[in-house]
Amino acid sequence: MTNPKKRRVFQKKVREEIDVKHLAEKMIKGDRGALSKGITIIESHARHHRQTANDLIQLILPYTGDSVRVGITGVPGAGKSTWIEAFGKTAVSKKHKTAVLAVDPSSSLSGGSILGDKTRMEFLAHHPDVFIRPSPSSGTLGGVARMTRETILLCEAAGYDLILVETVGVGQSEGIVRGMTDFFLLLSLTGAGDELQGMKKGIMELVDAIVINKADGANKEQAVKTMHDYNQILRFITPATKGWKPKAYTCSALYNDGINDVWDAVFEFIEATKKTGEFHKRRSRQSVDWMNQLIQIKLNETFFNDQKKLQLKILEEKVRSGEVSPSEAAELLFD
Amino acid sequence: MTNPKKRRVFQKKVREEIDVKHLAEKMIKGDRGALSKGITIIESHARHHRQTANDLIQLILPYTGDSVRVGITGVPGAGKSTWIEAFGKTAVSKKHKTAVLAVDPSSSLSGGSILGDKTRMEFLAHHPDVFIRPSPSSGTLGGVARMTRETILLCEAAGYDLILVETVGVGQSEGIVRGMTDFFLLLSLTGAGDELQGMKKGIMELVDAIVINKADGANKEQAVKTMHDYNQILRFITPATKGWKPKAYTCSALYNDGINDVWDAVFEFIEATKKTGEFHKRRSRQSVDWMNQLIQIKLNETFFNDQKKLQLKILEEKVRSGEVSPSEAAELLFD
Repeated sequence: MTNPKKRRVFQKKVREEIDVKHLAEKMIKGDRGALSKGITIIESHARHHRQTANDLIQLILPYTGDSVRVGITGVPGAGKSTWIEAFGKTAVSKKHKTAVLAVDPSSSLSGGSILGDKTRMEFLAHHPDVFIRPSPSSGTLGGVARMTRETILLCEAAGYDLILVETVGVGQSEGIVRGMTDFFLLLSLTGAGDELQGMKKGIMELVDAIVINKADGANKEQAVKTMHDYNQILRFITPATKGWKPKAYTCSALYNDGINDVWDAVFEFIEATKKTGEFHKRRSRQSVDWMNQLIQIKLNETFFNDQKKLQLKILEEKVRSGEVSPSEAAELLFD
Repeated sequence: MTNPKKRRVFQKKVREEIDVKHLAEKMIKGDRGALSKGITIIESHARHHRQTANDLIQLILPYTGDSVRVGITGVPGAGKSTWIEAFGKTAVSKKHKTAVLAVDPSSSLSGGSILGDKTRMEFLAHHPDVFIRPSPSSGTLGGVARMTRETILLCEAAGYDLILVETVGVGQSEGIVRGMTDFFLLLSLTGAGDELQGMKKGIMELVDAIVINKADGANKEQAVKTMHDYNQILRFITPATKGWKPKAYTCSALYNDGINDVWDAVFEFIEATKKTGEFHKRRSRQSVDWMNQLIQIKLNETFFNDQKKLQLKILEEKVRSGEVSPSEAAELLFD
């Protein structure tokens, strides 16, 4: 311990270990500042924060899991913020501590859409029982997913028993949010069959409910028609959750109409899947899947250094042009 | 070169290099024996055969690609063999050299269902312009997929210009066959909406056509109804191929009724997608995807030795029980 450099590292490590215990304790008591700080550590790209984050999660792990995790997806303009505001209002009126998170890969520059949306969630933004956190603002989709999953655990440890995870549904983000939530909901707009055609591939097979929002005024009739259209398609699709028949609902977040029906559906779903064991099965499966995803990410990070990345790019071109076979290219990368 | 061991290795290498060149030449001339031998090398699990296989593929690569690759999936009992027999008959009558391959992970013990099915493909089994090869009989689905992809290339080099790849559609095999073919076809039976409900998740989003088989006799009316049902669902789904609207057809392989309509659809599809460039785009994409899959397989094979496999199993249990967080578990595996 006479090497000053070594001592500094050691001291730093000790300091962080103490911090993390204290932080975990404060978090478990429901301290919002501690929760925010914990999430900041999780979202940090500094390498030494990663172990701190893992230590923190390991400490709070026994206090996690006791919540209802709801994923919400929908195209921009579907009214996600207004809908979450209305749904969250119902939640807090029923004494649920509610966290609103996001997986929004498109917002990597703006720093998260929810931040901007806070103005559209004015009630929730100022409510003491609500915690709103924008999407992690940088990194790959896999990285953002990891951070959000870990943030869910932190929120649960801090006593939030309803976790809403919003995603705009670009690329693969719906699948990722489906993979970290119990109940998955598609927020849609009114629209005839033709409009439905633009729907994202595979989305119908992920959902536990479809909510046609903005079903008010002149829109109402059309919304009911869309609901019937959706219900007809849903009949033909293997349900996302074993033993649960997904249904379509109409809803007006603006006039707080139909929100209670969706609320009831969510909690009916939780009760039913807890009874059959599907709830806990999915949770375990999600954890193991997540572990496996992290392993794959790490395996690739370790293998693909700058040289390998460059080599891959060259090989990809050769495969594309038909000069090298895919199997030969794969072999060459490992030479 | 005085070390006898070294010389043996060198000689062996030379011998195989000569063999492989000779084999490739014979194959390109359309020699069936050479084709069979090439496939056997590809399907070999001996490590030194892998390089030979890669050399062979590299040699024949310039002679590949000029075919129409059609994937066919359907539940057991949908009449795949009879349908392929009828479709293949049409093909040879139009002077197409036809290869029939399979990806059938369920047949790892029986050694491939097509072998048994050959009796149901009596015409094709004995036709000089037809080459039938059962599914590779062992290995992981990824391994079987690799072998079938490589077999497609070998068949093409040997002059087969229509490649039919059959899969029973267990687990993920449809996605895999979709990923190695130009046109993907679901063979279905008559059935009301309720029967359609048992359909595999996501299958509708992979297909370029749905063929309701056994549309004959008392079944015919019901088959037409099923066709309408399918067409209605297809309206709501993003097509698998850009610019192509998948449709449902009725067909009786037994009475050779409707086969020509499907034939026309396939070749209309090929013409249309070649015109838009989608055909070649998909082929390149498939090759690059395949390379990336092989890299992932190899990366995992390299990392997961017996010790890591055991460690993973233990960690999985700990994650499942909530004792260790997924992120901590992933870290521990790399320690």
